[in-house]
Amino acid sequence: MKNRTKGQWQDVQAAAGNGLLDRRAFLRGGAAFAATITGYSMAKSASAEPLGDDPWSKVPGAISPSYEKRSRYEEKLVRTLSNPNGEPRTQHARTPHHLLNGTFTPNGLHFTIIHGGTPDIDPDKHRLVVHGLVKQPLVFTLDALARYPMVSRMTFVECGGNSAPFFSKEPIQASVQALHGLVSCAEWTGVRLSTLLEETGIDPKAKWFIAEGADAPALSRSVPVKKAMDDAMIALYQNGERIMPGNGYPMRLLLPGYEGNMNIKFLRRIKLVDQPGMSYYETRSYTQLLPNGKSWQFNFLQEVKSFITHPSPGLGLKGPGLYEIAGIAYSGNGRISKVIVSADGGQSWAQAALQEPVLSKAFTRFRLPWKWNGGPAILQSRAWDESGDVQPTRAQIVAARGESKGVPPVTAFPGQHYNGITTWAVDAKGEVKHVYA
Amino acid sequence: MKNRTKGQWQDVQAAAGNGLLDRRAFLRGGAAFAATITGYSMAKSASAEPLGDDPWSKVPGAISPSYEKRSRYEEKLVRTLSNPNGEPRTQHARTPHHLLNGTFTPNGLHFTIIHGGTPDIDPDKHRLVVHGLVKQPLVFTLDALARYPMVSRMTFVECGGNSAPFFSKEPIQASVQALHGLVSCAEWTGVRLSTLLEETGIDPKAKWFIAEGADAPALSRSVPVKKAMDDAMIALYQNGERIMPGNGYPMRLLLPGYEGNMNIKFLRRIKLVDQPGMSYYETRSYTQLLPNGKSWQFNFLQEVKSFITHPSPGLGLKGPGLYEIAGIAYSGNGRISKVIVSADGGQSWAQAALQEPVLSKAFTRFRLPWKWNGGPAILQSRAWDESGDVQPTRAQIVAARGESKGVPPVTAFPGQHYNGITTWAVDAKGEVKHVYA
Repeated sequence: MKNRTKGQWQDVQAAAGNGLLDRRAFLRGGAAFAATITGYSMAKSASAEPLGDDPWSKVPGAISPSYEKRSRYEEKLVRTLSNPNGEPRTQHARTPHHLLNGTFTPNGLHFTIIHGGTPDIDPDKHRLVVHGLVKQPLVFTLDALARYPMVSRMTFVECGGNSAPFFSKEPIQASVQALHGLVSCAEWTGVRLSTLLEETGIDPKAKWFIAEGADAPALSRSVPVKKAMDDAMIALYQNGERIMPGNGYPMRLLLPGYEGNMNIKFLRRIKLVDQPGMSYYETRSYTQLLPNGKSWQFNFLQEVKSFITHPSPGLGLKGPGLYEIAGIAYSGNGRISKVIVSADGGQSWAQAALQEPVLSKAFTRFRLPWKWNGGPAILQSRAWDESGDVQPTRAQIVAARGESKGVPPVTAFPGQHYNGITTWAVDAKGEVKHVYA
Repeated sequence: MKNRTKGQWQDVQAAAGNGLLDRRAFLRGGAAFAATITGYSMAKSASAEPLGDDPWSKVPGAISPSYEKRSRYEEKLVRTLSNPNGEPRTQHARTPHHLLNGTFTPNGLHFTIIHGGTPDIDPDKHRLVVHGLVKQPLVFTLDALARYPMVSRMTFVECGGNSAPFFSKEPIQASVQALHGLVSCAEWTGVRLSTLLEETGIDPKAKWFIAEGADAPALSRSVPVKKAMDDAMIALYQNGERIMPGNGYPMRLLLPGYEGNMNIKFLRRIKLVDQPGMSYYETRSYTQLLPNGKSWQFNFLQEVKSFITHPSPGLGLKGPGLYEIAGIAYSGNGRISKVIVSADGGQSWAQAALQEPVLSKAFTRFRLPWKWNGGPAILQSRAWDESGDVQPTRAQIVAARGESKGVPPVTAFPGQHYNGITTWAVDAKGEVKHVYA
């Protein structure tokens, strides 16, 4: 019996240049897949019996823990920390997208950014106040919120500063975790903010609300009331269990599609007001200076975006043959409608398969089979959403917003809302580098 | 400002007896919800400012860990273990459904059953052999499988013996975790088994395959080849990350809708054969003796089922007023098409709201608003699936299969595939008990 280490798939329908294959080859599955992929050159083996027993098959295994933990062989799979010693500054913990698969992020690996450390909140003592321009201000305990109608939805949360290294004049050589690790996707369950506001009533003068956290910096952001009445949620559960400390335990504001910093964690206050609060983060970090000298404020939306996770820097190819190109696409506008992939730097494109169900404002996994011939390849992906928006090229973004003069990866200007195309260059050794193309 | 501890929701449209309200009240959301729910008796409060600061708001918080952990206040939320000291017998770890919400189970709390302990498998040394009645037997490493086309799907896995206490002559007083904790739902990502079999080729004489694990008991089960060519998967990822040790690290067989024991963990072998292997578990544990003296073998399907998780035993009501009744429904046949709920022991029923997206062979969360008047109530749920199957009553099941003479919760006969209705009785104190009705 021979190890299956590389395949030589032949007679598969080409979909674009440099080896991209038809996505429908495996979307149809079953017999149709067999009909399109034939001619493996694997040697037929002798009998496999008896199978040899590995050491772990010969001894009793471990006792089940009451809360299951990962294999010790997976413990190296972690978030990278920008401030591992907890100095008095911001902490970033980035998601290792190149080592995950599927359509969302497990709770241990969801990205977090925290500006004053993670507070140790007693859920029985925590309160949410809704007040300001309302008819009757109210205080909610966790027990009270548990009695309200709940909703669940898969939604990505992305830092407005995710992918900021792409504003650098030269491509930063780093993994997809370092470049795009400040976005994750989870199922959030909680109470619609509109449900609570219908209880408090809304003064017609209220146009904004200020959301404030119970962390030491009392982080606050201003949000239009219109978003509150649309799909804003007081999230209590993350992927089925109570939300993680770094994601705002015991409750956070969830604003599907809006920049991460607005999704206030450790939420303790919703105050309805007639104008925005002009807080630190909305006037400083998330107001972007443009090359024409003007500033771009209250740009909340995380627009349509995609990037390839497999292969990617650090996750190279092991010899010519067939691979699956896979990645993540998402849009704050709604559903992803199409993702195309190129293996020749944008000269030709093939449409990728989208993993069903394709959900609004959630990660959509895209996949495409690729026969790598062992030569150089330039991989790109480009996404569209149901509103008709298309992911821009990097050149389009830097033309409008300029390139960074700062030292990466901390880019002071301009460093927000990069949703342009990501390009990976594969060399003849199968190694993957970040390039601009 | 007054705490929101109980509501007095009035003028809400009744949907069935004993306080069940129209599910569309909150499905429509927004203004429609406000229009149907009016007349809160909450006192209007004085100004909330300044807010008092809790202790955790006054000090810097904790450093983010590289793998996020739950709050220390949530550490009591665990799986219950049937064999916590690891004696040489089976270990059950049950999911606490009454303390979770949403539509699936986080990896730490997914149920597991392990008969010889959890093996400590080195993923680089683990191999999957596909052989027997194939044209060319093959061996697959994890690296080789990583190159194949992958798919992701949300799917429940349920032990055939889940809910066995319902065969007891008297209702067992226990939590939903003890009664229904051997079912969970996750997103699984991996390679279709059909993709691998198209590579090995299939001898036309092959009608079954035997799947075998690398755990010490080398647990094996026989599965029809038809299932392999339908939706069977070699699962490598569970909720985005590598599958947990207790769920079969580094790979398991996934047979959506089939009893859990067949979803072989630590998968090391798929052998195609012309007849079933008649292994220990398929001839002993999962062959069910019927009252008429015949045995029921190779009954793989987990049929349509539902149960209420909120409220449930141990999770009672705190005074009259409005609550949300919530629960889980699923079927091995496909999508859930309808769930109805009764608060008067089945005299009248209201249709529950189903959380979108409703996915085939996955958990569907159902929800219904309920105004508890403080009197006795008998809560039930009943589900239908897209094949037209309806969840049976308990009386129907025990008429066909008999009641247990054994001592609960270990029931030797008959103890498999209970999918009947679950009934909770609420007393005037708001306490919830398990009853038969």
